[in-house]
Amino acid sequence: MNNFTFCVPTRIHFGKGQISHLSELAESGSNVLLVYGGGSIKKSGLYDEATVILADAGLHVVELSGIEPNPRIESVREGARLCKEHAIDMVLAVGGGSVIDAAKVIAGAAKYDGDAWDLVLDRTKIKAALPVYSVLTLAATGSEMDPFAVISDLSKNEKWGTSSPLFVPKMSVLDPTYTFSVSKKQTAAGTADMMSHVFESYFTNVEGATLQAHMSEALLKTLVHYGPIALAEPDNYDARANLMWCGSHAINGLLDSGAEVAWCVHPMEHELSAFYDITHGEGLAILTPVWMKHVLAKDPSKAAAFAEYGRAVFGIAEANDAQAAAAAIERTEDFLFNQMGLPSKLHEVGIEDEENFAAMAKKAAAGCVGSFVPLEENDIVEIYRAAL
Amino acid sequence: MNNFTFCVPTRIHFGKGQISHLSELAESGSNVLLVYGGGSIKKSGLYDEATVILADAGLHVVELSGIEPNPRIESVREGARLCKEHAIDMVLAVGGGSVIDAAKVIAGAAKYDGDAWDLVLDRTKIKAALPVYSVLTLAATGSEMDPFAVISDLSKNEKWGTSSPLFVPKMSVLDPTYTFSVSKKQTAAGTADMMSHVFESYFTNVEGATLQAHMSEALLKTLVHYGPIALAEPDNYDARANLMWCGSHAINGLLDSGAEVAWCVHPMEHELSAFYDITHGEGLAILTPVWMKHVLAKDPSKAAAFAEYGRAVFGIAEANDAQAAAAAIERTEDFLFNQMGLPSKLHEVGIEDEENFAAMAKKAAAGCVGSFVPLEENDIVEIYRAAL
Repeated sequence: MNNFTFCVPTRIHFGKGQISHLSELAESGSNVLLVYGGGSIKKSGLYDEATVILADAGLHVVELSGIEPNPRIESVREGARLCKEHAIDMVLAVGGGSVIDAAKVIAGAAKYDGDAWDLVLDRTKIKAALPVYSVLTLAATGSEMDPFAVISDLSKNEKWGTSSPLFVPKMSVLDPTYTFSVSKKQTAAGTADMMSHVFESYFTNVEGATLQAHMSEALLKTLVHYGPIALAEPDNYDARANLMWCGSHAINGLLDSGAEVAWCVHPMEHELSAFYDITHGEGLAILTPVWMKHVLAKDPSKAAAFAEYGRAVFGIAEANDAQAAAAAIERTEDFLFNQMGLPSKLHEVGIEDEENFAAMAKKAAAGCVGSFVPLEENDIVEIYRAAL
Repeated sequence: MNNFTFCVPTRIHFGKGQISHLSELAESGSNVLLVYGGGSIKKSGLYDEATVILADAGLHVVELSGIEPNPRIESVREGARLCKEHAIDMVLAVGGGSVIDAAKVIAGAAKYDGDAWDLVLDRTKIKAALPVYSVLTLAATGSEMDPFAVISDLSKNEKWGTSSPLFVPKMSVLDPTYTFSVSKKQTAAGTADMMSHVFESYFTNVEGATLQAHMSEALLKTLVHYGPIALAEPDNYDARANLMWCGSHAINGLLDSGAEVAWCVHPMEHELSAFYDITHGEGLAILTPVWMKHVLAKDPSKAAAFAEYGRAVFGIAEANDAQAAAAAIERTEDFLFNQMGLPSKLHEVGIEDEENFAAMAKKAAAGCVGSFVPLEENDIVEIYRAAL
């Protein structure tokens, strides 16, 4: 097991009706920037519920709506401008990961004199930030309990992750009932995103991070069990609750501390979203089994790791590692594409040719150390091609 | 899944050499009360290492040594007196759970005008506390990352738990190499304690706390795997590291948030320690399988839960729940008594007759709601008798 520092200070209020805890925002001052997306929180009633609680707590609210699914730097700049203009004390995100990610970089940019994009390109420039709070409406990115944010500048086909301990939300409300109305497409994409977060550290070369491996299997088993239930019964509370709590733990440091943090599939997917603005979780679902097959072909000694995954998560009984590994990848494909109904090929999400693959691979390779089986640019192009 | 609030703000520095982070104590002031036990940290060199780092960080140290394995209120009172006399800013525990527990209540008593025992009997009286830090030397209680403390007044045969969010350590150093010198007896007792912490919430009547159940199984599998390795190879780093990290997560809220917190075996064991001053983990090992058999006999519908445990943790293939449950209990006994070498009967730890059982059961029943299968005083007496 590797050395690590683990610190997850977010106060999580989990369950039905926990929105009442929004009154705790008064601990951070009086002026709130309320950040949200396309307005679904107005239809659902959550907007009204939240703003009444904030008003009752004596908080003054300024709003920024219209955060995009792949949140854009232009929105972040506008948020930072509002913070400075209205002497904002804290940022409250009400939405999914995109909204929370935007809120984090807004919180940093509000305390920064230069352009907000600097904080995306260079996390060392994040020296201060307003406190961030969130009310989660989508189980997926884990942004409600982690230091990360991913922001796009589509004018340059750029999508980059940044992070800061200052971005970790101070408090997040996780009420699974807010995800009852999440579409099948977004439920499936969120599940694929959470699984991919687990995979990124579960497949590691570090020896002896056994507790982390078994915890990862615990999340994967839970996701595989409840994903299809949430699709079939959108208002099944336990299904939504388990998916939601998996999302937070998949990326808050519990699984990768002591193992390894050398993400590989995420950087490859970020280029798909940066160039084609596709749904992140769909891109991950398409790439994941292709990546598994590619690294297994490149380094057959990894069969043991994929076999262990298959046995623990899918109950595969096959004793031969190579055969168990192949079966594990088949079961992964069956889960993502048949049970969760996710697209299995890039052409299904509008990526029809390999025109940009070389440029995308070059950018992905910059972040894609992929220590489990290191990938070069040509590996990444091959993976994109195999996914077409 | 039940509603819950989850907040585990302790900053954990995990791994070899992380003691250097003791310099961070300067964030809380300049006067440190250093609390430790019987002096093993002097033999091991940890005392010298820690005091040099504290001195280099400009910290002034006052010492309280001699904390007992079942820490006593007299030591807590002395610690509180020292805090008041020397204007102490923070309390640093270097030791196992007993030392950390004592440090927590000292930290509270330092900010309390009445007698420290009040804070043990009534946690609502804990309104303030000095910051608590710890360097862990024994994988067992999880006190390094939780709000709990258990203190004894042996003059009254009283042993009670108390807790406060103010008691959660601000920072803990977890260096597995500090546990290389832990004896076989203490390694085994610590493992039994950690398993019992998991069992206390794993066996729950709450439906749908599935992620928590799978996480619990992850810890149990890790403990069952590495416990015997740590006995056979005391300086096996990965074994010690996994046991240590299991200890923290077994009781920091990860496993019981959303499930249930209605401990049962612990309150029964606390009376054994309070009346006979035995090793906590040994008492738990003796009681655990007896408790399992008792509740299964009382409510045979619980066979499904024990069967699930046996299948997940021990790989029991038996399809019939009653038979799988019986096998799971047998495997638990085999692990604790044969593989870990723990005592299996009370007479082995010096409890020869049932003289105090009625009095102990009466006190245990006060805290022992045991919601999985509720226990009455007569159940507890029967469990003690069966364990003789």
